[in-house]
Amino acid sequence: MTSEEPEDGSGVIHRTTGGKPRRSFQSFLIGQPLQTADAPHQTIGKAIGLAVFASDALSSTAYATQEILFILAAAGTVAFGYVFPISIAIVALMAMVSISYEQTIHAYPDGGGSYIVSRDNLGEMPAQIAGASLLTDYILTVAVSISSGVAQLTSAFPGLYAFRVEVAVALVFFIMLLNLRGVKESGIIFAGPVYFFVTMMVFTVLVGLVRVVSGTLGQVVDPPAFEIGAALVPITGFLLLHAFSSGTAALTGIEAISNGITAFKEPRSRNAGITLVWMSVILGVLFLGISFLTGQIHAIPSEHETVISQLARTVYNGRNLFYLATISATTIILILAANTSFADFPRLSALMGKDGFLPRQFAFRGSRLVFSNGIAVLAVMASLLIILFQASVNALIPLYAIGVFMSFSLSQAGMARRWWKIGHLAEGVEVKERGSVLRYDSRWRVKMLINGFGAVLTTVVVLVFARTKFFDGAWLVLVIIPLIVLMLSAIRRHYLHLADRLSLNNYNETPPVTRHRVIMLMSSVHRGSLAALNYARNLSEDVTVLHVSVDPDETERMRERWETWGNNVRLVILESPYRLMFQPVLQYIEDILTVRQPNELITVVVPYFVPEHAAANLLHMQTASTLRKLLSHTKNIVITEVPYQVD
Amino acid sequence: MTSEEPEDGSGVIHRTTGGKPRRSFQSFLIGQPLQTADAPHQTIGKAIGLAVFASDALSSTAYATQEILFILAAAGTVAFGYVFPISIAIVALMAMVSISYEQTIHAYPDGGGSYIVSRDNLGEMPAQIAGASLLTDYILTVAVSISSGVAQLTSAFPGLYAFRVEVAVALVFFIMLLNLRGVKESGIIFAGPVYFFVTMMVFTVLVGLVRVVSGTLGQVVDPPAFEIGAALVPITGFLLLHAFSSGTAALTGIEAISNGITAFKEPRSRNAGITLVWMSVILGVLFLGISFLTGQIHAIPSEHETVISQLARTVYNGRNLFYLATISATTIILILAANTSFADFPRLSALMGKDGFLPRQFAFRGSRLVFSNGIAVLAVMASLLIILFQASVNALIPLYAIGVFMSFSLSQAGMARRWWKIGHLAEGVEVKERGSVLRYDSRWRVKMLINGFGAVLTTVVVLVFARTKFFDGAWLVLVIIPLIVLMLSAIRRHYLHLADRLSLNNYNETPPVTRHRVIMLMSSVHRGSLAALNYARNLSEDVTVLHVSVDPDETERMRERWETWGNNVRLVILESPYRLMFQPVLQYIEDILTVRQPNELITVVVPYFVPEHAAANLLHMQTASTLRKLLSHTKNIVITEVPYQVD
Repeated sequence: MTSEEPEDGSGVIHRTTGGKPRRSFQSFLIGQPLQTADAPHQTIGKAIGLAVFASDALSSTAYATQEILFILAAAGTVAFGYVFPISIAIVALMAMVSISYEQTIHAYPDGGGSYIVSRDNLGEMPAQIAGASLLTDYILTVAVSISSGVAQLTSAFPGLYAFRVEVAVALVFFIMLLNLRGVKESGIIFAGPVYFFVTMMVFTVLVGLVRVVSGTLGQVVDPPAFEIGAALVPITGFLLLHAFSSGTAALTGIEAISNGITAFKEPRSRNAGITLVWMSVILGVLFLGISFLTGQIHAIPSEHETVISQLARTVYNGRNLFYLATISATTIILILAANTSFADFPRLSALMGKDGFLPRQFAFRGSRLVFSNGIAVLAVMASLLIILFQASVNALIPLYAIGVFMSFSLSQAGMARRWWKIGHLAEGVEVKERGSVLRYDSRWRVKMLINGFGAVLTTVVVLVFARTKFFDGAWLVLVIIPLIVLMLSAIRRHYLHLADRLSLNNYNETPPVTRHRVIMLMSSVHRGSLAALNYARNLSEDVTVLHVSVDPDETERMRERWETWGNNVRLVILESPYRLMFQPVLQYIEDILTVRQPNELITVVVPYFVPEHAAANLLHMQTASTLRKLLSHTKNIVITEVPYQVD
Repeated sequence: MTSEEPEDGSGVIHRTTGGKPRRSFQSFLIGQPLQTADAPHQTIGKAIGLAVFASDALSSTAYATQEILFILAAAGTVAFGYVFPISIAIVALMAMVSISYEQTIHAYPDGGGSYIVSRDNLGEMPAQIAGASLLTDYILTVAVSISSGVAQLTSAFPGLYAFRVEVAVALVFFIMLLNLRGVKESGIIFAGPVYFFVTMMVFTVLVGLVRVVSGTLGQVVDPPAFEIGAALVPITGFLLLHAFSSGTAALTGIEAISNGITAFKEPRSRNAGITLVWMSVILGVLFLGISFLTGQIHAIPSEHETVISQLARTVYNGRNLFYLATISATTIILILAANTSFADFPRLSALMGKDGFLPRQFAFRGSRLVFSNGIAVLAVMASLLIILFQASVNALIPLYAIGVFMSFSLSQAGMARRWWKIGHLAEGVEVKERGSVLRYDSRWRVKMLINGFGAVLTTVVVLVFARTKFFDGAWLVLVIIPLIVLMLSAIRRHYLHLADRLSLNNYNETPPVTRHRVIMLMSSVHRGSLAALNYARNLSEDVTVLHVSVDPDETERMRERWETWGNNVRLVILESPYRLMFQPVLQYIEDILTVRQPNELITVVVPYFVPEHAAANLLHMQTASTLRKLLSHTKNIVITEVPYQVD
């Protein structure tokens, strides 16, 4: 390696293979650290990709129909006839959004979430709005999916109802651990359950339809009590739009693939695009099937038994093995659906961190090649929501999906703008933008129309949301998203300000150091402090050892030993009869500052013991950190901890 | 100052006057930092001493009688006749313990708590048991006093009952802040309320007695519901002993003065001794008076109205101004009683920290000359207890007082042992022990008998406690105290082990450093990193700058700038395509270690920005701390953060 180092000061490329694995409780929980060379293999194919990215979208069939019913219930059971027409409208919207996103995936092979598309085509502010909306909705996805999963569980085992919040929070942390292990291993874990769910639901819908046709499907036996407020409201356009808004929760998760293209095997865009189409078709079929059958069996929306549970026990004639299989499949996919957010939230916050809108720490991978900070933040925020809303899907749903639809609008508006730019390029010209390459496409007008129509449609949906769900809780999201945007801007400003202050424009070379004074703190003379003294003497000729005297006997012992071991270094004893530790040292340093020469450096050396067990650190003063805080605004003072390994 | 520094290496006494005051939110809450020179004035006279140290003992009259009634209630109202006889027994015990402690105060003018007396006369293990018992009971004192104070409040204003836990926790933190301000200011705050309480209670008891004699004192009007379990138990010796155990809560706090002698003005022992006698007399008179009147008015123990409240509204014929004055005085003194523990817990933990049984940090004073760490720990632990037991005095009382009585026994056994040693000294001989001076005293036999009798008596009480209150919760304390003792021993072992490893026996002078290699991390070239480079070049000729390359464009910019600003220092670029930060650096350092010469030093220099607001630290990687943790077990590597003030 030394041979690689030229003496002329030019840069040398030095390749590394990453840190050494260590065994610890952490590695037991999240696995051995992966070497960097492993990273390229961490990509996934279409089948596993569907499992990882589609679980959110597919799982929303477990609650979307029910949430439509909850709103319609205000007008009495007679309004339930509108469930199927509303569902058809939602599936049409879904088809539109999917086509729109399929175009995005091919335009942005490196990942084209709303944030990137808005940033590259619409500018910084729309990008921040898209980012804030998505981050909010990822958190809500975890809270809603887990809450709904637990609701399925409590439908089958009502005894668990009292512990729903605890169970939900425990599940969030379980998924967090899975994700800290890395994306591929998580993918394998999720593939089985997702396909099990798809199989079970398709089977349930098919059996249900056959029984409808053969006229043997009855109504729900012992339906849950129909809970309805004081007076029935009439069936108005507003009510139907409100129901439609709640039902659009079915669309959340459709954008997941466009954010996660880089996780796919090559050819990425193609694989991701095909996965998106599969996903939308399965989602549409299941959602329509469930909504249709729900009407046939006269299911009742309830906090105590989910519509899926009512459907399954009607189709299968009771709480038998088929019922239990359907419920477990639904429970598991909902729990795993949260996983989509655990793949996307960290990826998005890494992007935004790299752009300086979030703390840069989000942009760095942990030892398992995942963005650990984002994963942890998501788990904590989602748990808080679950606790706050007592794991009730019905209470969470008014907050849900607004963010996603805002990001849909921005993303599609950005794509429309992009096609416009492409249409005005000369043929054969290529323009490189940050996230993609612009190349002339003769079909730009059609494509622009598709994305533009999608943008208008989803904007209308956002307005419908804001109007119909405002007082149910949507106002909270409409307050929080601007606050997040403010925070993002403030962070960005901080980084810009910092860059400005650190800029080398008009910079004069730092004048050479005239004097380097080393001050060392020593409470007693022993192997550790003598090792630190050795270090201090290596830094400079000018070393002063300070001893804060809190106990005359100890000080006397210190002076005696100093004569033997002090190597003639200057010792200054600071009296502190009232057992104050830092004030005498600070006062001494302040006195020195008054006589400091220009360009004089001061290094304060603090001996520090490294105990075998980290817990023993609690038994020692954190002298260096405290001094560092106290002196952080004084220029040209460096605090250095010199470690001494006790064992 | 420079003139004070001789060049011959001998020690110089350098006097300081402490740190400079700074204005901050912290100083708004807890006051300006005090200079060390202010410390001697922070002592108190007898009148304020009574207020500071007696509030705990006196305030126990607010619940002791009631807790006797709670136990007797199991045998029905007929058992209430035993309240007064049991109270007389408790007051007799109290007189005995007071006389015992009066002797201790004179023997230990520097503070003679159970811990010191046990340590000096019985040895390390008894000292640890005494320490653990006292620490536990100080925490319980805060929890019980605050809970009882809030109970008085909710007796007068039943609407507050639902918020009792929140109110109690808020009060604990209020007292914590008062105490962080320092003992004298706290003393002045407490003097008024304590004397107001003594006046009001003496007045209430006198009026009550006059009305009894004149035959005009009736029974409680509308007493609270008499809540009693299924079957009445007979009045047995066990029941009476159980009631006696609960009532001895009245004695807690009596030892406070002996722990806090150093807070008194000179002559300390005399002032402290007189204060103790005053306190005991007031306490005994009030307790007997209240117990007697409680029987007269047929008060009923209840969670919803305290016995004091029932007594006050019977004596004063209703909830009038006198009633409110009595209740407020009781509430306030109970709330302030917790203050005794806030004076003693930190003092004891400082002592134990100095002896190496607790982290040494407890032994150092904060900027207001109080032991801030102990104060904070006490507040947190007491709040946890209050939350756990929902601020119910009746639920807390079975845990209470065992610790105090264990420490009484040990302290008095220690004193007895001490008189025995004194009795066997020759006349005129003085033996200096750690905490006191032994001098022949002709009356040693009487004094030994007094302390010995006290020790036997309190040991019997501890056994009665353990037997009668075991299943009510005392078992918890009997489990926790040994656990604390184990912890104390482990801490002590750690310090002893450390001292052994650091000892200079068989120590060979560290060989001189052969090479000092400086490695500097640099993410980009700017004012901050160039300042750090300047520092690095001052440390050694051998400087290598490491750049972790996560973005090729950034790296290219870095290389270009390095040619202008790099001063020909060697630059090594570490590739990290997957955005890992630390692994490449660790790998590089590991490679270097394999070629390291013996006695070679490595210093890793990390540039660090000091933002104007501490919150902005969240936006930067804590690179140095992370590296320090990762490399803490590697020998001869020092991590140095070089600060750069951005604004």
